[in-house]
Amino acid sequence: MILCDIGNTSVDLFCEGERTKLSVENFDPATLHDDVYYVSVNTLFNEQIQKYANWHDVRELIDWDKYYPTMGIDRIMVCEAVEEGVIVDAGSAITVDMMRGGVYQGGFISLGLRAAYEAYARVSPALDMSFNFEVDLVKMAKNTPDALTVGFLAPLILKIESLGKPIYMSGGDARLLSRFLPEATVDEELIFKGMKKLIEKGVKC
Amino acid sequence: MILCDIGNTSVDLFCEGERTKLSVENFDPATLHDDVYYVSVNTLFNEQIQKYANWHDVRELIDWDKYYPTMGIDRIMVCEAVEEGVIVDAGSAITVDMMRGGVYQGGFISLGLRAAYEAYARVSPALDMSFNFEVDLVKMAKNTPDALTVGFLAPLILKIESLGKPIYMSGGDARLLSRFLPEATVDEELIFKGMKKLIEKGVKC
Repeated sequence: MILCDIGNTSVDLFCEGERTKLSVENFDPATLHDDVYYVSVNTLFNEQIQKYANWHDVRELIDWDKYYPTMGIDRIMVCEAVEEGVIVDAGSAITVDMMRGGVYQGGFISLGLRAAYEAYARVSPALDMSFNFEVDLVKMAKNTPDALTVGFLAPLILKIESLGKPIYMSGGDARLLSRFLPEATVDEELIFKGMKKLIEKGVKC
Repeated sequence: MILCDIGNTSVDLFCEGERTKLSVENFDPATLHDDVYYVSVNTLFNEQIQKYANWHDVRELIDWDKYYPTMGIDRIMVCEAVEEGVIVDAGSAITVDMMRGGVYQGGFISLGLRAAYEAYARVSPALDMSFNFEVDLVKMAKNTPDALTVGFLAPLILKIESLGKPIYMSGGDARLLSRFLPEATVDEELIFKGMKKLIEKGVKC
């Protein structure tokens, strides 16, 4: 069984504990002969994949009563991986969700680090500078890079901490963000763990 | 005495309690014959104004040891207006600063409401939707507009509240934001109050 996460630009494959990241453009679904379970946000790919009988859309296994219709599929998968806790998925957006006893409690969406940085730069050329990830988020800032970093990260980290524990982090910026949440567990395979749990549940039923 | 706040697109005049907002393009400094004290972020205007002897740059009255060199002039002015408290200036960016006993303690810079909304829309067309200002920021969201609003505002409001009281709010979005900070004092003339205090101090010396 192969697990597959399809974005708009990349294909992330997970097979027997090994992860392979490919570009969507260079990826041919016909090269995979095993059963593939996938989640996809790529509408073009979704159309192409219909003809392959060994490709199964994990979306069909979701209990939609637990979530809401416009909720991102990746976000649902990382939630499915966690029975109890706060899940932070730090990618192009940073989604923060809460699970209690396997029941989805709701969540919120912050901008991703790059999106935030770019948004500051658009407000004013004077705010076009990199975040300082060495900053102490508890202190008020006295220079511009620190003021931007504290302005974006201190409220977010404070809010995440206020939601209780345990905290799980996933996504491309998880490791960078986790230095401000030292008790969080970084798990880059959270999406595949969620998919696997859901497939096992679906197969059992 | 006329007080004047010059931005890149608008000129905000304050004279005997009356406020007048004009477009920079249509404004001719020669029409004012009284003493004018101004703050300006408009470099083109700053060059033009040199030749008018009745125009005085308030920047020259600032005690720069209290602040930092790249700190926005408008931000310094709203701080000068407050002896003790947290100052939130909600414009194209949202600046949050703290004064204790007239001494600047530092601050941070968040995105303005419009900048945040636009940044979400750039992340994904699925996130291109207006904030819901009726949302309960304490609850986790279960639909996309609420998830964006909670994602942007709940961390920011929580952080501002953690800084102590009193809270003063100024800027174009102050009234809108103040519904989430019911104990804050909205004062749209904070910048002019700061300028006035600084001018009085400067004149006394």
